[in-house]
Amino acid sequence: MATPSTTNRPTPERIFGFMNAFQQTEALKSGIELDVFTSIGEGANTSQLLAAKTGASERGLRILCDYLTIMGLLAKENGRYALTEESALFLDKRSPASLNAVTGFLASSWHKKNVEALTQAVRKGGTAGTQGDNSKPQDEVWVAFARSMAKLTIPAANFIAELLGAAQGKPCSVLDIAAGHGNYGITIAKKNPNATIVAVDWASVLAVAQENAQAAGLSGRYSTRPGSAFETDLGSGYDYVLLTNIFHHFDIATCEKLMRRVHAALKPGGKAVTLEFVPNEDRVTPPAAAGFSLNMLVGTDAGDAYTFSEYEKMFSNTGFAKTTLHPVTGMPQQVLISEKPE
Amino acid sequence: MATPSTTNRPTPERIFGFMNAFQQTEALKSGIELDVFTSIGEGANTSQLLAAKTGASERGLRILCDYLTIMGLLAKENGRYALTEESALFLDKRSPASLNAVTGFLASSWHKKNVEALTQAVRKGGTAGTQGDNSKPQDEVWVAFARSMAKLTIPAANFIAELLGAAQGKPCSVLDIAAGHGNYGITIAKKNPNATIVAVDWASVLAVAQENAQAAGLSGRYSTRPGSAFETDLGSGYDYVLLTNIFHHFDIATCEKLMRRVHAALKPGGKAVTLEFVPNEDRVTPPAAAGFSLNMLVGTDAGDAYTFSEYEKMFSNTGFAKTTLHPVTGMPQQVLISEKPE
Repeated sequence: MATPSTTNRPTPERIFGFMNAFQQTEALKSGIELDVFTSIGEGANTSQLLAAKTGASERGLRILCDYLTIMGLLAKENGRYALTEESALFLDKRSPASLNAVTGFLASSWHKKNVEALTQAVRKGGTAGTQGDNSKPQDEVWVAFARSMAKLTIPAANFIAELLGAAQGKPCSVLDIAAGHGNYGITIAKKNPNATIVAVDWASVLAVAQENAQAAGLSGRYSTRPGSAFETDLGSGYDYVLLTNIFHHFDIATCEKLMRRVHAALKPGGKAVTLEFVPNEDRVTPPAAAGFSLNMLVGTDAGDAYTFSEYEKMFSNTGFAKTTLHPVTGMPQQVLISEKPE
Repeated sequence: MATPSTTNRPTPERIFGFMNAFQQTEALKSGIELDVFTSIGEGANTSQLLAAKTGASERGLRILCDYLTIMGLLAKENGRYALTEESALFLDKRSPASLNAVTGFLASSWHKKNVEALTQAVRKGGTAGTQGDNSKPQDEVWVAFARSMAKLTIPAANFIAELLGAAQGKPCSVLDIAAGHGNYGITIAKKNPNATIVAVDWASVLAVAQENAQAAGLSGRYSTRPGSAFETDLGSGYDYVLLTNIFHHFDIATCEKLMRRVHAALKPGGKAVTLEFVPNEDRVTPPAAAGFSLNMLVGTDAGDAYTFSEYEKMFSNTGFAKTTLHPVTGMPQQVLISEKPE
């Protein structure tokens, strides 16, 4: 038989891979839903043992676990599956760092439907989801967010607390805008017994933050101001204002409107602390920060992942003296610190 | 300010990436649907020019093109987008190798719904799609398949024609089982003017293969036998029987039943030519072939991506003398050649 020749032209394998990429999302979700990671962590390390433990089929579990192995979320040797360092830490629900609840938001049917309407969103230039822009008041999405996402924020919350020198215990007052689960402010208060936190968000969302603050034993140093960050009385004289993952929902004029209110709420020499997805000026690197822009196209009318120069300009336009950028290890976001002049 | 310490423990970025992986599928689909690749190929290389050409919004196109750049499907320099070698070849609809139609099958809502029912499929051990097992007679899915997938098969079809020495022009008769678009048989007949092809599939699907054969100028050498490959009279005395992407739909007993019919249809010394996703014995490498198993879990009652040793056993059980394995450059599938003893 003839031996076919090989060529150097590109192959369609990568495109095939992108067409199938949604299968990775579904496989991860199913692994979590069926407790596959936790069960393997507990010793059910073959498809037969997993079937006995979870009640699902042996064929289905074997194919799912093989797929999760291909994704690098499991290891397989001699037909036995094992957690990797990564899945043991983040996907075994017994791990304190378990991210299983995060699928409740990131892979929610709400977000999925928005993404599936991408073509219409590109046509019109903003969200084509039936729910409309997700920065609307009282949006129930943000209660789901507050319940799901707290653990994902641990590295960034620790980073911010360290960056602000929380462990030094200097008395300080912190305003946490769009607090959500409240984890950023709560982490500071846990590390600094002399910090007081004021959280702003919709009342329904603040209920979650309050629960978390109480569980952390901070009740006496934790208070809330329900309402829109654009309208409610924010108070004044704060040392720090936290603005975590909020600017990306809005256009630049709206961001500046908010930053003017933040300026008024800070004491002279106080600092605005922004956590954001900040792509490089080319808007296509680094991948996770730059790619976040797509979430804002499908979920909002005018939000975006802004570059550092765009933030610098917004912050100097609104009275801040200088802005510095601090990458957070292992997170797609970065921290921007902007100072209100003395 | 304190400088936060860094640690070496795993970060959640990869898991975040899997949760968002479905966005890659949607971005590729939108790029195709909105003619983004073709328009850039034609010179509309900024989001403004693309907006003018496609009628979609500038903001939407900028964010989508940035995302496609992050995926490596576009290049971006000084705000201008360009096709890569890969996207010029496979995603510009003016290219003869354009795969745009393939999304009609691979990213179809039918397949998507099956994958979205993965958790239920794992529970029950087979497809949980409302449509049931996709190897049912007359399934309209296979007409869509025949219309969408022909171009994806070009490298494998050329490879098989070369492997069978088609260019030598030796008279031969070829039975093409579950012919679909007919491209495997048609490619042999185009390269070998002395080859005659008999195609088997549902009548509705054979209409597509007939169209393609006619377009290739093969009408006189191309005939069809409508019906199930398990029931219809296949004829006999063939030099080659093509079995492309069919075995993976069935359990082993059913595959052997088909292979016995193939044995009867071949002349002594004739060859069965199987194109399949053949994972290594570990069932988790190579990724594309091993991962195909998941498609069979969500789409069939009992199909699978079988290993070489499983195929060898099926084929020797059904009277074939020896089986050899031939990787196809740039394709996830491999070709198995099995000989009926003289």
